[in-house]
Amino acid sequence: MPRICVDMDDVMADTLGEYLRRYNQIFDEAVTPQDLVGKPVWEIAPPERHAQMHAIFQAEDFFENLEVIPGSQQVMESLTARFEIFIATQAMAVPNSLGPKFRWLQRHFPFIPASHYVFCGNKSILRADYLIDDLLRNLLHFEGQGILYSAPRNLTATGFVRVNNWQEVAEYFANQPG
Amino acid sequence: MPRICVDMDDVMADTLGEYLRRYNQIFDEAVTPQDLVGKPVWEIAPPERHAQMHAIFQAEDFFENLEVIPGSQQVMESLTARFEIFIATQAMAVPNSLGPKFRWLQRHFPFIPASHYVFCGNKSILRADYLIDDLLRNLLHFEGQGILYSAPRNLTATGFVRVNNWQEVAEYFANQPG
Repeated sequence: MPRICVDMDDVMADTLGEYLRRYNQIFDEAVTPQDLVGKPVWEIAPPERHAQMHAIFQAEDFFENLEVIPGSQQVMESLTARFEIFIATQAMAVPNSLGPKFRWLQRHFPFIPASHYVFCGNKSILRADYLIDDLLRNLLHFEGQGILYSAPRNLTATGFVRVNNWQEVAEYFANQPG
Repeated sequence: MPRICVDMDDVMADTLGEYLRRYNQIFDEAVTPQDLVGKPVWEIAPPERHAQMHAIFQAEDFFENLEVIPGSQQVMESLTARFEIFIATQAMAVPNSLGPKFRWLQRHFPFIPASHYVFCGNKSILRADYLIDDLLRNLLHFEGQGILYSAPRNLTATGFVRVNNWQEVAEYFANQPG
């Protein structure tokens, strides 16, 4: 079976949504995903906020209760019939996220066995046929077919196979040999 | 640079030593590594002990303070000059081990960046040229060159490139193109 690696943050889990919720609460602002088109979250804020912004990700409970990206559960479950699915998430920059990410996956994606979780840093380590990811850097490191999952900051990137939502993921793989 | 993945338990960290220390304390026995030649640890004990034995690994502090396998630090540090080193450890069967394993690596192997840690289950996901591991199953799943690091339970296995200690790891890689 061909193998698909799926990124977690902003592909399966609405990390950006929770981030902005906390950011807006701390700084009394109303930043939306649309304000972040084509740029990383660091560019929306003055440097003196960066330490506090970093702390948002480090909070013990940040990764525990993220919303599930709509359609990800249904589409991934149906893809398991024709593909071997691994979850590949960059977790090492925020070690506090390791336990919460594990529990989140168990709770929301019980049909993926824990043996198929990969908590890593550099995604060039993945041996797989496909990688669905929202970070250009991860796709550029990956040796198989990269699939760019749209997120505000990557909307201006060109030259990638792009999917805008999980319905488009389903359509893409309907045309791939399983 | 060619890439080497290194397993943690019983290759970098003396997991079996700590396990037997706790096992012997709980059951008032004196099992040694020599008693485990050719068999997994489950075979040395009656089934009624298995739940308690499983709990040994699950203890929050088990993976926090393992001894470092002699020579692993020096040899790995010198290998970084000619090879890209990743740590690849099966952590998903014991989610309690995720945080402790991360901290242990930071403490004892500070020359390996966290971006090069891979906490996984099935090691077929690794894209690397070499894997040093004590579990036959992991080597059989791996697509590159497997190197069996001797441990009591694997001593009867044949047909693998075998190293008995870190000095032999150094000698093996001295003869590989860097």
